[in-house]
Amino acid sequence: MNYSSLTKQQLKDEYERQSKRYENLKAQQLCLDLSRGKPSAEQLDLSNAILDCVNSSSVLYTENGTDCRNYGLLEGIPEARNLFAEILDTDPSNVLVAGNSSLILMFALLSHAMIDGIMGGVPFCKQEKIKFLCPAPGYDRHFDMTRHFGFELITVDMESDGPNMDQIEELVKDPAVKGVWCVPKYQNPTGVVYSDKTVRRFAALKPASPDFRIFWDNAYCMHNYDGDTHTILDIISECKKAQNEDMVYEFCSTSKMSYPGGGIAAIATSPANIIDIKGFLKYATIGPDKINQLRAVRFFKNKQNIKKHMKLQAAVLAPKFAAVQKVLEKELSCCGIGEWTKPCGGYFISFNTPEGCAKRTVSLCAECGVKFTPAGATFPYGIDPADRNIRLAPSFATLDEIEKAVEIFCVSVKIAALEKLL
Amino acid sequence: MNYSSLTKQQLKDEYERQSKRYENLKAQQLCLDLSRGKPSAEQLDLSNAILDCVNSSSVLYTENGTDCRNYGLLEGIPEARNLFAEILDTDPSNVLVAGNSSLILMFALLSHAMIDGIMGGVPFCKQEKIKFLCPAPGYDRHFDMTRHFGFELITVDMESDGPNMDQIEELVKDPAVKGVWCVPKYQNPTGVVYSDKTVRRFAALKPASPDFRIFWDNAYCMHNYDGDTHTILDIISECKKAQNEDMVYEFCSTSKMSYPGGGIAAIATSPANIIDIKGFLKYATIGPDKINQLRAVRFFKNKQNIKKHMKLQAAVLAPKFAAVQKVLEKELSCCGIGEWTKPCGGYFISFNTPEGCAKRTVSLCAECGVKFTPAGATFPYGIDPADRNIRLAPSFATLDEIEKAVEIFCVSVKIAALEKLL
Repeated sequence: MNYSSLTKQQLKDEYERQSKRYENLKAQQLCLDLSRGKPSAEQLDLSNAILDCVNSSSVLYTENGTDCRNYGLLEGIPEARNLFAEILDTDPSNVLVAGNSSLILMFALLSHAMIDGIMGGVPFCKQEKIKFLCPAPGYDRHFDMTRHFGFELITVDMESDGPNMDQIEELVKDPAVKGVWCVPKYQNPTGVVYSDKTVRRFAALKPASPDFRIFWDNAYCMHNYDGDTHTILDIISECKKAQNEDMVYEFCSTSKMSYPGGGIAAIATSPANIIDIKGFLKYATIGPDKINQLRAVRFFKNKQNIKKHMKLQAAVLAPKFAAVQKVLEKELSCCGIGEWTKPCGGYFISFNTPEGCAKRTVSLCAECGVKFTPAGATFPYGIDPADRNIRLAPSFATLDEIEKAVEIFCVSVKIAALEKLL
Repeated sequence: MNYSSLTKQQLKDEYERQSKRYENLKAQQLCLDLSRGKPSAEQLDLSNAILDCVNSSSVLYTENGTDCRNYGLLEGIPEARNLFAEILDTDPSNVLVAGNSSLILMFALLSHAMIDGIMGGVPFCKQEKIKFLCPAPGYDRHFDMTRHFGFELITVDMESDGPNMDQIEELVKDPAVKGVWCVPKYQNPTGVVYSDKTVRRFAALKPASPDFRIFWDNAYCMHNYDGDTHTILDIISECKKAQNEDMVYEFCSTSKMSYPGGGIAAIATSPANIIDIKGFLKYATIGPDKINQLRAVRFFKNKQNIKKHMKLQAAVLAPKFAAVQKVLEKELSCCGIGEWTKPCGGYFISFNTPEGCAKRTVSLCAECGVKFTPAGATFPYGIDPADRNIRLAPSFATLDEIEKAVEIFCVSVKIAALEKLL
């Protein structure tokens, strides 16, 4: 029964029915969490052999003869640079491996832009206004980071093949616009994979500001779970072809290949940017944790082996995403009160309620013991102008939990929608 | 023969003698390096069991039930906070454990001060001038970091019981003075241990600026090698007693207890500072590498055990420092042309040539195949006004290498001094 074709009385009856279901579900006093993109323990177990890859009997030298136990190698060990270069289809000389998370690298680069300026440009803190483009729905931590730095966040619409490039091409004509957040593959939260056309339009941007940078967070580059591998164009070589070699910072990490926080992270970018980055990084650190880089390299070996490893992860994740789809389909497809994405990788499903129903839905879920990311979190400033978008993150929960949580979610969507209609 | 009592002809004869020695040593075409405070492979080997402390059969949960393989615990795992609290004689709630080096924490705090301001104060980048106090000779990376941020560096004299506190008490009356670099125990490069009086005078400072901070880099707190353990007062509780609770950031790491770059690092400070730090850190990262924290905690266990471990390190280091002292004593004590420190811990010996001879000495050594930290590096801007100070770092070289290197050093000091006298 499509809600839009129901009479007032029929809507009332449906509201009564769903409210009763809701009360019954609430009585079960559940405590479920679909709020964050955390791997489950079952997934983490798949990587436990990484803990045995370096031990006291191991060779602890890099291929260029550096003792990984001692100081040095600001840019990371050659083996780790090679591995990320292979993953990202770029040259090892473009890669710097540092730290345990790519997020902290993004923060370091924005701090550099604020304090020093990019490549000798005027520091952002000395410029009157800095604007940053935020394709939304998008990743809340990205938006919050740029908000923390005091930038003005400008929402760009997410389409099915990437951000709306007409909007971006127009917006970058403003010299105050200094960057754009991108998750090019299995975008958080839509799961969208950027089309070749989108990547090429990014590479060909003509920003007014020379210190404009694309923050290309390739967090889910190996994270498909449908057996098929979607490929995206290499942004670094596309930028070079378009004579925009220095315009992109690409990020990657093994956080969601092995352990979140216990992995290794990298930035890939032009040689000139690498020089600029090392120019401030050398004041911050003598070098990264090379032992942990060695551990990751010995565990993952090469891209082909990572693909095999990610298939094992997919075998855990795919049924969970299928379960979400099944319940959404069963509960909502006939009602006409929700739209959602059907991603082939990544960690999220993006759900749109009817306008003005997202906050109410999340709040109903919370009362019923199911936690979601706050409605609005996927938009700049945490404000979804249409109050529609909710991010579903089923990776951490069990299959049973997911089915129950999504059922409660669907009932909540229905109640919120019916409240609006009545 | 004291050079000051020699006749011109005697000086000429001595110059001839030392020049011949120098040419003979040069003919050996040596390649020796006493430039950096790097542990030797023999020392690193002492920690190799740390690589076996966490493996695929280990319990990977913290005592509070957090899976170390997954996201979370911005402030570090409780076990690691406890360990650093014990090392630093402070409360675990004052401790935040993050990253693989304390240097990067100092850089993060200065970036925070630049961009956000400390505890809601005016960001340093919006203030006209920032000045930083640099007790010298001191650690070149400290000075270079604050220089990188564009601060004006002000030299403070190092005395035998810490920095000259009369100077510091006067200088902090200037509201542009925002901080001071300290290595309170076995200072780099003098090996000086701050006296209780010095620590208390630091704690009782009355800086004009509320965002003045003491950067208390307790890098060598466990690093004695004379069998005796020097204790310094806990700066955090001293500051609290003096109602200056928020005035100090204390730093520590296991870099020179296990592996440089492969260890874990901590900051200890007041509860209000911890809140301020987490307030920006949460935008930079979801959490530290908790697995590596677990590894360190299981290896080091507690302070008593670290003491035992550091005794093993001392057994490697002490003979090296003794060898330096022996050669310096033999070659120079009678000539009256050099003064040097006799530290009981840390990684360095500080040497003063006669005025105007340090650069020439280092250059003579380089020509003879022995590398030292550039003369002047131990002073702000790399400029030693008296051109006297040279840092000797014998940890990485072998005993034979050290004896040869210090012999060449002594001959070079003599030649440089004689060139001045003639």
